[in-house]
Parts: sequence; C-alpha cells; structure tokens
Amino acid sequence: MRTSQYLLATQKETPADAEVISHQLMLRAGLIRKLASGLYTWLPTGLRVLNKVANIVREEMNKAGAIEVLMPVVQPADLWQETGRWEEYGPELLRIKDRHQRDFVLGPTHEEVITALVRNEISSYKQLPLNLYQIQTKFRDEVRPRFGIMRGREFTMKDAYSFHITQESLQDTYDAMYGAYCKIFERMQLDYRPVMADTGSIGGSVSHEFHVLAESGEDNIAFSNGSDYAANVELAQTQQVESASVDGLQYVLVQAADENGEADANNWVLLVLAAGHTLNDIKAEKLSGVAAPLITANDETVSAVLGATSNDIDLASVKVPVFADYVVAAALKHQAYAEKITAADLRNIEAGDPSPCGNGTIEIKRGIEVGHIFQLGDKYSEAMGCGVLNENGKHEILSMGCYGIGVSRVVAAAIEQNHDEHGIIWPDPIAPFKVALIPMNMHKSQRIMEAAEALYAELTAAGVEVLFDDRKERPGVMFKDMELVGIPHSIVIGERNLDEQLVEYKNRRTGEKSLLQLTEVTAFIGGL
Amino acid sequence: MRTSQYLLATQKETPADAEVISHQLMLRAGLIRKLASGLYTWLPTGLRVLNKVANIVREEMNKAGAIEVLMPVVQPADLWQETGRWEEYGPELLRIKDRHQRDFVLGPTHEEVITALVRNEISSYKQLPLNLYQIQTKFRDEVRPRFGIMRGREFTMKDAYSFHITQESLQDTYDAMYGAYCKIFERMQLDYRPVMADTGSIGGSVSHEFHVLAESGEDNIAFSNGSDYAANVELAQTQQVESASVDGLQYVLVQAADENGEADANNWVLLVLAAGHTLNDIKAEKLSGVAAPLITANDETVSAVLGATSNDIDLASVKVPVFADYVVAAALKHQAYAEKITAADLRNIEAGDPSPCGNGTIEIKRGIEVGHIFQLGDKYSEAMGCGVLNENGKHEILSMGCYGIGVSRVVAAAIEQNHDEHGIIWPDPIAPFKVALIPMNMHKSQRIMEAAEALYAELTAAGVEVLFDDRKERPGVMFKDMELVGIPHSIVIGERNLDEQLVEYKNRRTGEKSLLQLTEVTAFIGGL
Repeated sequence: MRTSQYLLATQKETPADAEVISHQLMLRAGLIRKLASGLYTWLPTGLRVLNKVANIVREEMNKAGAIEVLMPVVQPADLWQETGRWEEYGPELLRIKDRHQRDFVLGPTHEEVITALVRNEISSYKQLPLNLYQIQTKFRDEVRPRFGIMRGREFTMKDAYSFHITQESLQDTYDAMYGAYCKIFERMQLDYRPVMADTGSIGGSVSHEFHVLAESGEDNIAFSNGSDYAANVELAQTQQVESASVDGLQYVLVQAADENGEADANNWVLLVLAAGHTLNDIKAEKLSGVAAPLITANDETVSAVLGATSNDIDLASVKVPVFADYVVAAALKHQAYAEKITAADLRNIEAGDPSPCGNGTIEIKRGIEVGHIFQLGDKYSEAMGCGVLNENGKHEILSMGCYGIGVSRVVAAAIEQNHDEHGIIWPDPIAPFKVALIPMNMHKSQRIMEAAEALYAELTAAGVEVLFDDRKERPGVMFKDMELVGIPHSIVIGERNLDEQLVEYKNRRTGEKSLLQLTEVTAFIGGL
Repeated sequence: MRTSQYLLATQKETPADAEVISHQLMLRAGLIRKLASGLYTWLPTGLRVLNKVANIVREEMNKAGAIEVLMPVVQPADLWQETGRWEEYGPELLRIKDRHQRDFVLGPTHEEVITALVRNEISSYKQLPLNLYQIQTKFRDEVRPRFGIMRGREFTMKDAYSFHITQESLQDTYDAMYGAYCKIFERMQLDYRPVMADTGSIGGSVSHEFHVLAESGEDNIAFSNGSDYAANVELAQTQQVESASVDGLQYVLVQAADENGEADANNWVLLVLAAGHTLNDIKAEKLSGVAAPLITANDETVSAVLGATSNDIDLASVKVPVFADYVVAAALKHQAYAEKITAADLRNIEAGDPSPCGNGTIEIKRGIEVGHIFQLGDKYSEAMGCGVLNENGKHEILSMGCYGIGVSRVVAAAIEQNHDEHGIIWPDPIAPFKVALIPMNMHKSQRIMEAAEALYAELTAAGVEVLFDDRKERPGVMFKDMELVGIPHSIVIGERNLDEQLVEYKNRRTGEKSLLQLTEVTAFIGGL
C-alpha cells in the first residue's frame, strides 16, 4: 500500500476528550474516528488490525470444532420476553419499534436467538454437542460511553454458544474453549491471564475471564506466585488467620437489612477493617443483616448511632452488630469485647496475602477483560424449552455454555499493553502492516525512487504487507508517522547507504538498527 | 468438515411461505433460517457462501484501488437532517431513539456518514481521488419483506464512495468500478449484464445496474444483439419510424395536467398504441399535459368524454389531445386527422425492435439487480459542505461516486440462476464446499471407512474444502442432501468399485460420472 493512495489520517495533537492512551493513540494513529457518542468508524489502518484479530479468533474457533453462523443485529422482542430479560435488562438494551410498531431490540448478546434456533433445528442427542459462533456487530446503549472503542456502544464481538446433553460434554467444550482462548491471545503475542470470575447477571456457575495485562486496566487481578491461581480482586477470598497485629482500625457504619433483605432505615451494622485495607463492597453486601447495595452512614449518623466520630470509636461500648475483617478479629481476639465481634472476609485481597489456593502468595496486576467463558447450565434452555430426545427417547433440556471475545476491544487492549511515548508498538501478528518502507527525499532522487519502487515490488511479490511512504514529506514526518502507527519493522532508504547498496532496518519495539544489503532485505523480513 | 460435527440442517419439505426458488432452496439446503419477518440467521453452509462472495468482492475492490473501512450500523439523525433525507426518506428508514432520547437511524446506506468523515479528514486536492468501501450490515424496514434474503430487512452490502475534484477523476474511478464489478461477477461464474439505469432518488446523472440473469428476475432488460447496449426495459427508448402497419389500435384515456403539472380533473388526454404493445407509464408520465402519476379513466368516463367505448373510438372525431406511439403515428400518417396526433415514445421496447444504440435488434431477458454504480455529482458534498482546497488554494466542493453490491442478495441470485429439480448447483468459486465425500454404508464396512478417512485426510491436507458425509444414513439420503446443497463435485466410495481401488466421481452440473483411481482423486480434484 502506498501512503499517497491510502487514508493514513495521522494527527499531531492529542484529542482533548480521549482519557486513556489507547483511545488517544487510536485517534492520533488514524485507526478510528468518532461518529457520535460511543459510535466509531474504523479507518483503513484500524480495520486492518480488527480484521487480523477477527481472523485469528476465527481460525482458532474453527480448529476447536466451533461452527460459524451469522445472526441478525435486530432481534424480535418476543424471544427476550420468553427468557424474562425484556423486563430484567436495563436501558443498555436498546428497544426499538419497526414501522408496524412491533417491538425489537438491537442485540447486545444472542442467547435468545441461538437458543430459539437450536430448539427448532436439533431434535436428537446424536446431533450434540454443538458449538456455534459468530463474529458480529453488537449494540449496548452505555449510559456514559468512554475510552473510545474500549467502552463503545456499537462493537464487534465473537460470541459462541454450545449445547449439551451432559455436564461432562459441557465441561469438555468449556475446556476446549479455554484452550482456544489461550491460543488466540498467545498468537496475538499479548500478555494475558485467564482469571476466575463471577458469573454475574448472565447466570450459570463456572466462569473465567481472559484479561490482557496493562497498567491502565480497569480490573485488579490477584495472582498466586506459587500456582496458576488468578482471580478478580473483588472475588478473591482472604483467609482466616490465627494471629495478627494491626497499626490501627477503620470503621464503616452501614445500613442494616430486615428479615426480607430490605434496607432497615433505623438499624445499622458496624464494619471494622485494619488501617490500610480496602473494604470489598461485594463481600460486605453478602453479610447476613447488611443491606445490599451498601448504604454508608454520614458523619452525623455515625455520631448519633455510636456516640462518637469514626476516629474515636470504643468497640467495648458499641451497641450495634459488629463484623470485623479476619485480620482485625485475630488482632482483637484477646479483648474482653471479642465475643460480640463476628469475623468475616470483608476486604480486598492484597499483594503479599497468602493465596486462597493454599500455594504461594498473592501479587496484584491490572487487566483489561477481553474474553469471558461461562457454563450457563439450563438458564436459557429451560426458559425457552430447548431440549432433545435422549438415548431413552425422553425429552431432556440441554445445558449451554457461552464464550465471548470483545474483538474490537482486543485492539484497544493490545495498544494499552504495547506502546511508548512515540506511539503504538504492534505485535507482528496483528500489525496493520509488517513493514514500513521509508525512502528519504525520494521525489528529489531518481535512484532512491528506483530502489524504493523495486524493493516495494519485491516485498509485495513475496507476500509481505508493506506500507510504502511515497508522500512528498520530510523524512522526520515519515519517521514520526510510522512510529505512531506502530509498524513493527522499518526499512529506510537514504543516499549515503545506497552508495554501498545498503538500507537501514529498524525494529519498532527494541529500537535496534542495523544495515542490510538491498538484496537481502526480503529474505531478512521473511525470516522475522 | 464432517457432517456429523456440522449443522447441515437440510429439510425435505418445501416451506409453504417461500415463493421463489432461491428462498425455498436456501431454507431446504440449510443456508438460512427465518428469525422474524425479513430477518434471517445465516446457517454454516449459507455463511460459507456469503463469506466467499464477500471475499471476491473485497479482493477486486482492493485491486481497483478502493480502501476498506467500517462504519457503524447506528447513525446519528443530525447527518440525515443535513442532507434533508431525514424528512425525505420514507418509513424504510428505521428511526430510533437512544436511552437519552436522541434520534438515530439504522443505516440503510452510508452517504451521510462517509461524507461527514471525508469533510473532516481531507483538506487538499492532493489527497484525492479517494475511494472508500465497506462490507457491512444494513437495515431497510421494507413494508412487506419477501423472497427470503432477496428482499429482507437486514442484509449485507458492499458500499463504496469515491471523492473527486474533477469530473474526469470521477469518470476514471467510475470506469474502474465498472471493470471491477465485471471481474467480480465473472469470478463468481455468474451470467450477468451491466445495464444502463435510472438514477432514481439517490440522485446524480450516470448510473449502471448489474443484473444476474434469471427467469425469475423482477426486472426486464433490453439487450442489443449487435452491440453492448443493455438497459432496463422501462428506460430503453423506442425509435421514430418512417412507415409502419398495425393490426389494430389500443386506446388509453388518462387525466390531463394543468399548467402546474397538477391533475386537471375535467380534462383528459388520449394515448394510442398498436395492438400487442405495452404502455410504458414512466414515458407517458413525462408527456407534456399528462398528469403524473398516471390516472386512467374508467369505462364510464371514456364513454362520457369520447362518446364511445375503448373498442369503438373514431380518432377523426376525438376532441381531446391525442398522443400516438411512433409506430401508430407512422401507420396513420396519411389519414386526414393525422395532424392532430402527436407522435411520442409511449411503449415498452420489445424483442425485435431496433436497438436505440443504432446497432442490432433488441432481445429481452429477465434479471436480478445485484449491483449499482452511480455518479452522484455534488448532491451530498454540496449539502454537507464537503470540499478541499484546489491547486489555486480555493475551496471547491467535491464530486462523488457510489458503488453498491448486495452481497447477501448475490447468494440468492446465484441460486435463481443455478439450480435444477434436485437443488442448488453452485459455481465452484462460491460453493460452500468444493467436494462432497460420500462413503456408502461406511459404518458397516471397515475398509470403506478406512478409504474414506484416508481420502478425507489427503484432500484436506491438499487444501480442498470437503464435506465428508460420515453420518449413519442410507446412501440415498446422502446423495439427495449433497445434491440439494449443491456441492459441485462428489466422490462416492462403494464396495464394488473399491475392489478395484476405484471411486466414482460425479459432476453436479453436468451429471457426468466417471471412475477414478483412488490414488488419482486429489490430483483430479485439484485440476478442476
């Protein structure tokens, strides 16, 4: 591709409203443009990356035995009514009416559609297991779209749904998908981790998230240094301890719940943590007698209820129920009032804590969720009556798995993990081009133009994806643009080196430079 | 691919509500399933074809210098307000509101979005010409979706938009697209024709449609047998003739128009055609003094206005204005009342008419429109202020071309043109699989299973796309399914032939059968 016949669309200025580095770089490097809040057009360079990501996903899904289909973006409401999600789902589900005033949704996910399909197509256990996937446009009407395509409204997902007559079969496919996901992110040369996860509102029991590690990640992940254990910090349990000392205590007064779990406006519960620890809301909300979602008392209420400020509480005289984190409970176990304290897991796990798996200690890293696999069980198949005749000729409801990858999100996550002050640094397998060919002042030098054209023809004929910068620009502008776009390998053709039939090779990631014979460039690039 | 691990989804019964053969066969051969009116899921076999069509389109667009982008399905209303299409477009444009009650549309086309993009990205004539395309999901809220994906609501389009500072540049890109479209349909081995077309509501001046010829086509196309001339029958002009004889006359009394072109309730105009010819409404509506759309008088009015029935009119005594088709005017030119007749092109061109191009005579065939190229001129760029600085540093509005292919529609059109009573007959380049491997009673014969497995492994290793029918089905069921699905080449492995290390080859299109040595199958298939 010649830049003169391409839409490079690089920008010097960092856009003011782009908060995260991937969003800034995707705009500056000409990967995307905003059409409206949460809606982006993929420019040529961005789409090349997106297509490479999609193709790797497709190849590994096929290898793992999944079969590709394509479902509509627009889905009829009646299927969502069958599962109850028409009512349950919040305003992220964009509900629309067609010209005949019939209800539809713009699909944020396709459990309903695929389950309806399989309900009609599959009648015998002999046709199972079946794992169907698509790479397709989804819509989620985020209240505050942000971070560019990282949390956009329209996005590209790979979503797969598997159907089974036994738990063993579901587990087999789940394991195969786990393996395929590992291969997918390995092939993209991303530093990633599979992480035990909560199944959340989608339902089911077993679930893993796949995270690309990056300092800017929204999620904190707890790893064991002595095992494969990895879990979202919110979910990692801390362990009961025999003894502990603390440098001080933190108190949080929260609303109590009545017998029905409803907030009980006149009663309160006191939570106690060691100084420096962080309250884990999810854990606190699961405590018996605590209202969920958590309602924290203001200073006035604290004074009224406890007769003291948060800094000045005497646990011995507190009259409300007290939950103390395991560490605090161990530190206070010899106090006279210890018996009115209930020990509980209240805090976020931290680096240095023993791993919940029993092996090693915990390290914390930040990650960006790019994939999620679930064992759904029969949540959707039961609600929609999706079953088959089993070996004994009896109708049996299927179990399901579902397996997502945020294809467009992977592009942003890869940038969060791979960039420097000059721009993006693409891993080769998802780079928009493998090689940037940069002739210096070509339009003033016939022999540089000839050498560049010949090398471009040779590399292209060898199947190498080359971005040939044939613009009438100063070399400095070209270097900066190619670095910003993040092409892994550059070949620079200049007068002085050309005297000796040499060109300069530069590696975008390492910064290493070397001189190559013109005649060996194609073989060198091919061998990278 | 093994059928046992695939979703073949063939059906014996012809679905009752499928009117056209492509719709019937796409359902029966397991290519698509209906989700709701005009909304279809692409099953694995259908998606394989769709992806092959899309890839051929993509390759030829790239070769022709177009650059791929991807725009959102959901588009903000304000762009459609800028061009006035927010008001102009009918209810086919599905208007939606997001959670903040902001107006959006589900894009049926992307002129507004691309023009807004280019307006922001391109500032100099040096960056032109530019031809951007996408292969993407579109939505058109058809009042009566029918014929399956042929006239569905959600569909896959390739749409391209080019931008130019001169008419010559636009013409160059238009010609390049014309050439690319010819290559695309040639590569798909479809019998197609480029046809001169009306530009309709999308605006602009020069336009060609690309039609796949098929008896079931909705459009009649007039071809010259002496030149490349081809036009939609509605648009092909008939020629004035010097002399003619007619076997009788037809009379059509239509409402007159007043000076403002409005229907003039008390006045009428008489149109006269030769017996056997068909009135062309579009041509009649363009006649001076005739109301558009055409309003035809009922028998009572004919009697009141002309004092006779349509069968019994005496032209000599008619008091209203008379337009006669060229043929009629020539036949009556020696009549005393000839001077009150205005000669006009009133009828549809017919087989045997001289070609409007001056060379050859006309033949009529039916076609399915699968592509359309337009020179839009400045309709959108003017309305949206999309221009660049020209060589003299002055701001100049760009001219545009647009170029569409109905990617999903091509799949249906290919079937309309390529089928027989047994099912689909795919051209090789868009077939879901190249070879059907059919072992007879494999589950009862170890040596047939071994031969089939070995051949499957060999063909797959050679890069051939094989559908290996490893189901426990009777051979007759397998044969019927593979014919229905339309796989171009079949290899049948049976006991008797295997005694001599032979297999049977069958060509789906010609029905030819031949015996092949097991060892030569892969080379034979590779050479097809």
